[in-house]
Amino acid sequence: MRPSGRTTSQIRPVTITRNFTAHAEGSVLIEIGDTKVLCNATVEVGVPRFMKGQGKGWITAEYGMLPRSTHTRNQREAAKGKQSGRTMEIQRLIARSLRAAVDLSALGENTITVDCDVIQADGGTRTASITGACVALVDAINYMRKEEIIKANPLKHMIAAISVGVYQGTPIADLEYVEDSEAETDMNVIMTEDGRLIEVQGTAEEEPFTFDEMQEMMALAKNAIGELIDEQKKALA
Amino acid sequence: MRPSGRTTSQIRPVTITRNFTAHAEGSVLIEIGDTKVLCNATVEVGVPRFMKGQGKGWITAEYGMLPRSTHTRNQREAAKGKQSGRTMEIQRLIARSLRAAVDLSALGENTITVDCDVIQADGGTRTASITGACVALVDAINYMRKEEIIKANPLKHMIAAISVGVYQGTPIADLEYVEDSEAETDMNVIMTEDGRLIEVQGTAEEEPFTFDEMQEMMALAKNAIGELIDEQKKALA
Amino acid sequence: MRPSGRTTSQIRPVTITRNFTAHAEGSVLIEIGDTKVLCNATVEVGVPRFMKGQGKGWITAEYGMLPRSTHTRNQREAAKGKQSGRTMEIQRLIARSLRAAVDLSALGENTITVDCDVIQADGGTRTASITGACVALVDAINYMRKEEIIKANPLKHMIAAISVGVYQGTPIADLEYVEDSEAETDMNVIMTEDGRLIEVQGTAEEEPFTFDEMQEMMALAKNAIGELIDEQKKALA
Amino acid sequence: MRPSGRTTSQIRPVTITRNFTAHAEGSVLIEIGDTKVLCNATVEVGVPRFMKGQGKGWITAEYGMLPRSTHTRNQREAAKGKQSGRTMEIQRLIARSLRAAVDLSALGENTITVDCDVIQADGGTRTASITGACVALVDAINYMRKEEIIKANPLKHMIAAISVGVYQGTPIADLEYVEDSEAETDMNVIMTEDGRLIEVQGTAEEEPFTFDEMQEMMALAKNAIGELIDEQKKALA
Amino acid sequence: MRPSGRTTSQIRPVTITRNFTAHAEGSVLIEIGDTKVLCNATVEVGVPRFMKGQGKGWITAEYGMLPRSTHTRNQREAAKGKQSGRTMEIQRLIARSLRAAVDLSALGENTITVDCDVIQADGGTRTASITGACVALVDAINYMRKEEIIKANPLKHMIAAISVGVYQGTPIADLEYVEDSEAETDMNVIMTEDGRLIEVQGTAEEEPFTFDEMQEMMALAKNAIGELIDEQKKALA
Amino acid sequence: MRPSGRTTSQIRPVTITRNFTAHAEGSVLIEIGDTKVLCNATVEVGVPRFMKGQGKGWITAEYGMLPRSTHTRNQREAAKGKQSGRTMEIQRLIARSLRAAVDLSALGENTITVDCDVIQADGGTRTASITGACVALVDAINYMRKEEIIKANPLKHMIAAISVGVYQGTPIADLEYVEDSEAETDMNVIMTEDGRLIEVQGTAEEEPFTFDEMQEMMALAKNAIGELIDEQKKALA
Repeated sequence: MRPSGRTTSQIRPVTITRNFTAHAEGSVLIEIGDTKVLCNATVEVGVPRFMKGQGKGWITAEYGMLPRSTHTRNQREAAKGKQSGRTMEIQRLIARSLRAAVDLSALGENTITVDCDVIQADGGTRTASITGACVALVDAINYMRKEEIIKANPLKHMIAAISVGVYQGTPIADLEYVEDSEAETDMNVIMTEDGRLIEVQGTAEEEPFTFDEMQEMMALAKNAIGELIDEQKKALA
Repeated sequence: MRPSGRTTSQIRPVTITRNFTAHAEGSVLIEIGDTKVLCNATVEVGVPRFMKGQGKGWITAEYGMLPRSTHTRNQREAAKGKQSGRTMEIQRLIARSLRAAVDLSALGENTITVDCDVIQADGGTRTASITGACVALVDAINYMRKEEIIKANPLKHMIAAISVGVYQGTPIADLEYVEDSEAETDMNVIMTEDGRLIEVQGTAEEEPFTFDEMQEMMALAKNAIGELIDEQKKALA
Repeated sequence: MRPSGRTTSQIRPVTITRNFTAHAEGSVLIEIGDTKVLCNATVEVGVPRFMKGQGKGWITAEYGMLPRSTHTRNQREAAKGKQSGRTMEIQRLIARSLRAAVDLSALGENTITVDCDVIQADGGTRTASITGACVALVDAINYMRKEEIIKANPLKHMIAAISVGVYQGTPIADLEYVEDSEAETDMNVIMTEDGRLIEVQGTAEEEPFTFDEMQEMMALAKNAIGELIDEQKKALA
Repeated sequence: MRPSGRTTSQIRPVTITRNFTAHAEGSVLIEIGDTKVLCNATVEVGVPRFMKGQGKGWITAEYGMLPRSTHTRNQREAAKGKQSGRTMEIQRLIARSLRAAVDLSALGENTITVDCDVIQADGGTRTASITGACVALVDAINYMRKEEIIKANPLKHMIAAISVGVYQGTPIADLEYVEDSEAETDMNVIMTEDGRLIEVQGTAEEEPFTFDEMQEMMALAKNAIGELIDEQKKALA
Repeated sequence: MRPSGRTTSQIRPVTITRNFTAHAEGSVLIEIGDTKVLCNATVEVGVPRFMKGQGKGWITAEYGMLPRSTHTRNQREAAKGKQSGRTMEIQRLIARSLRAAVDLSALGENTITVDCDVIQADGGTRTASITGACVALVDAINYMRKEEIIKANPLKHMIAAISVGVYQGTPIADLEYVEDSEAETDMNVIMTEDGRLIEVQGTAEEEPFTFDEMQEMMALAKNAIGELIDEQKKALA
Repeated sequence: MRPSGRTTSQIRPVTITRNFTAHAEGSVLIEIGDTKVLCNATVEVGVPRFMKGQGKGWITAEYGMLPRSTHTRNQREAAKGKQSGRTMEIQRLIARSLRAAVDLSALGENTITVDCDVIQADGGTRTASITGACVALVDAINYMRKEEIIKANPLKHMIAAISVGVYQGTPIADLEYVEDSEAETDMNVIMTEDGRLIEVQGTAEEEPFTFDEMQEMMALAKNAIGELIDEQKKALA
């Protein structure tokens, strides 16, 4: 039924490449099928003004799509002079999720910024960004420990994210673009490695969805995220 | 346990005032406890460029908070020269939800814009906006039918929204500001009058939440939204 | 002769409601006929950079119209990314007038910001804003004295404002929208309670006006402002 | 009493140079004392969108100060990315005044834009701009008639402008910077050659002003504007 | 003498990978040493307004650096809301150079936009962008011919670019970051495959340079560009 | 052959007027043929943040064209809300060139800003800006020495700039607008008084240019700049 021939619960092949670029403290290229996102984590001394003097750290994220990462070219946001609502929504989601993975008190007054730049898009760029960003975050934390910027490991748990949806009446996992653009419902789920929820965002694109459909999607998400966390751990091993 | 003495499932008193201002085709002041939002629906001929020539209508929304609707003054977004990520996220959510309530094909090439302006904030402004905006939308649709701009009723179903959350370990409905600012989890749920889901957005603020907590929050939301839809219908009667 | 049947010197009914919202130190809804403006005064510690170290306070104002406060919808300035020239002109006028009512030296290094947001417009929104803002300012000052932020009363005199104009060849007071849009001349006058002038802004919309017409308009303004100051005092009593 | 030794009614020397630059249809350098403004009028086919199809023309104006036209350098507005409220207020005033001098119906669907750029500032730049812009406007109109873009002369009357004020308790005409920065009241008056009023803008800077002071300032303005209109006519002869 | 041990005329290893991403009509990753730029060419029907109706095509370019392509993180231009002067300067240079390689009349009213996004920076990003963009441009042209959007080949000649400079008193070719940041003179040269000049931009960073030094740099550039054009041709073979 | 009848090496008449405006520490109007640029140098205490604490000064520049300095009116950049790429490129070039003329260490932590505003344009505005700005810079330095802000003279050498190009197959110096708009190649050259190079920017507008043409243009530039430096010295004498 799926254009790719995948089963309803089958996610696309995942490749996680660490140290993809030279300068960032954590640099990860994550590929999920044809979706490719470069996640660079930067460690900087200091925190934004609203956090100063609390002895805690901060984690933030920015998201962008290269203009021709998509089928047709999107206008460059830097040239347009502002980020779209969609971009802002996504980078707020990534940042919030990463903060939920870390004990900010154990980070000192330092900031980690994760830049997620989509090199090629085929659906699920925001969830791939989160999954890749978590690995880049771990590398940045390792750098901080090695450089003795921090002592303890502030990571509370790995997190990963997947999109699930209802496509032609059937709940499926890891929608690619052709599925996503026709799905009745689209849901992004972010979970910890111990199976708890960080964020759930479900949207009826065409028809409202039922509590039962939601349950089925949640089950697919749980399963997929388990696989993604395995991939993260393999990459970090 | 709740600061207000409410039970876990108890929502605040709801008042819906139609025709609150004189010029808009639909003008609703919704008050949920101390949260007050003015929802003005405007009917205009024509649709945005990307919709032209399809014979379908469009529904959009904008959201704003008066600078001193909150405990301390927020900078005016018009003066700052841009809308915050939060504002954009909220107005995209309102618009998406309203579109899910309407058959755009039955709207002709007309646009309805709903402006949700928060006069006073005490938690739940985005969900109050949606609940109030749906009533303003109905009034705008009634105006269009009376003026014979459209014949058939494009409304598919009423929608309403509520925030639920986990507060001090317990799932509760309709968080006010003091609860919201300390909640472990915050979830906004938008449903149709027949109990199906339009949108679910759950966020772990402090601790990840479990599937069980999510179930409980969903049940609270379903119940609260039922009450809100009763209030909408009473106001429209 | 006037569409409303009013006499040339007759102003519309005035209602001033204090404590209209819960959070601001001064919160006034002023209604002059169908024009309704919410004036919220905020007290903050500190002054803008150019005022620092002089031991004096500052008063500023911002003005906005809700997008559908008018007959047809105006684009939201926050969405457009800038305030119009008209908005800037009006908020500079409000702020300048309020500063002329107060001895800034007696305010300490504190700032009072008055937000004037037009809920519904029917002509005279800038003058209604000033008249309402002065009451909100008094409430903010009372708050500062009660909280012992300042000792002495920095208010030098109450101020109020009215629009006058030449309509169909005749000078009239307090133009409503249908008059304003056809007036030959439009003049905004701001005065103190002792009958002195704070600001006069007269504009020939169609035909230049004579010194005699100006005299007549000034007399109408003086009379109307006297009535407005009575209303302010009644509200504050 | 005046720093320059001028009498209360005495204006500074006026020089009006036509054809100051080569490209504009009207190009006037006006010098009033040490205030120097270059006024360039541009004729373009077509009108702004909101004027289309009415068979009428449009006149608009823009105002700017060179960054170092003043005692200390002002930030360049183009670099800052926006025009200040003061700039907007002034250019709106110039444009409104020029439109009051012309029968727009006799202009055809053409636009005249007058750019007023302050080369050197010593008080009264907005009124000098209007007085100079009127001459540039006449040259632009002459160009249009010579090129047979229009037949009839759309000019209804010359206009000119002056600042008057109360300085050390005494009404004076044509304030220079040292007077302006200490004046109790500042009033800008724009009149036609037949002595009628186009615009009056009076502001109490320190103390409210009385009706009598206003009368005296108006008389000074009338007299000064008469002299300026003589200078305009001499320059155009 | 050079930190890398290279001879004065020796350029870094060059790798040109075509079809690096899936969607663009031309997609090239160019690596020159540790500098890596992704050049995506997009073909679109139509030309900008100022080119309409001339029967000619248009070529434009945009340039960006990923925030962490550099040693320390640069603020994202999309978040800052504007492109820096440096970015604008570079993308204007890229576009101008590419247009000099093509007969725009043979392109029809179509636009080719080349996005050059720096993945990793180690000096010479603007010249690498041009060299890579030319290959992406050829692929886009090939696509247009294959799709029969155009018949004739509009390419007049290949172009390539290199930076040369004076480093510790000696002219060298292809400066990497550590050289560039200390060079006395920096010169970017863009040439055609037949050895003619498209653009020369030389800047004295520390000390003015002599005509003789310029001659030597030009000779180094000519030689290096010859090698780059060989690489381009190999990649396209 | 040249429209003006000039020989290939002949530059237009040059007039340099110092103290053109009253307030700037250096104020120079430079006229080269019909190109007229006002260059105002401002001395301010302090340096930009990135220069603080190094004990060195800073020189920067801004460039603008009055909207009607050109044949047809350009939109005012302040009204558009941003500076064009061309403007940014030019002001970066001016600033870089001026910095190359001065020993910043001898300037103390002070900033000189040179504003170059084009009053009338007829080709070569950027090179005229640099030539005029250098004289304004000298006056600003003289002011600093007279006021004992600095002791030693930080000027290393005078600089001047000229445009050269290939027009109808022949290299010529000092292109005016009609030549510039049709030239095959356009090159801007900035040199010191001792004949060394500060900046060379050559661009093929139509056809690539040869090394020989470049040589010829450089020779023309050297000669022309010699004449300009004579004019600067005469003006400063």
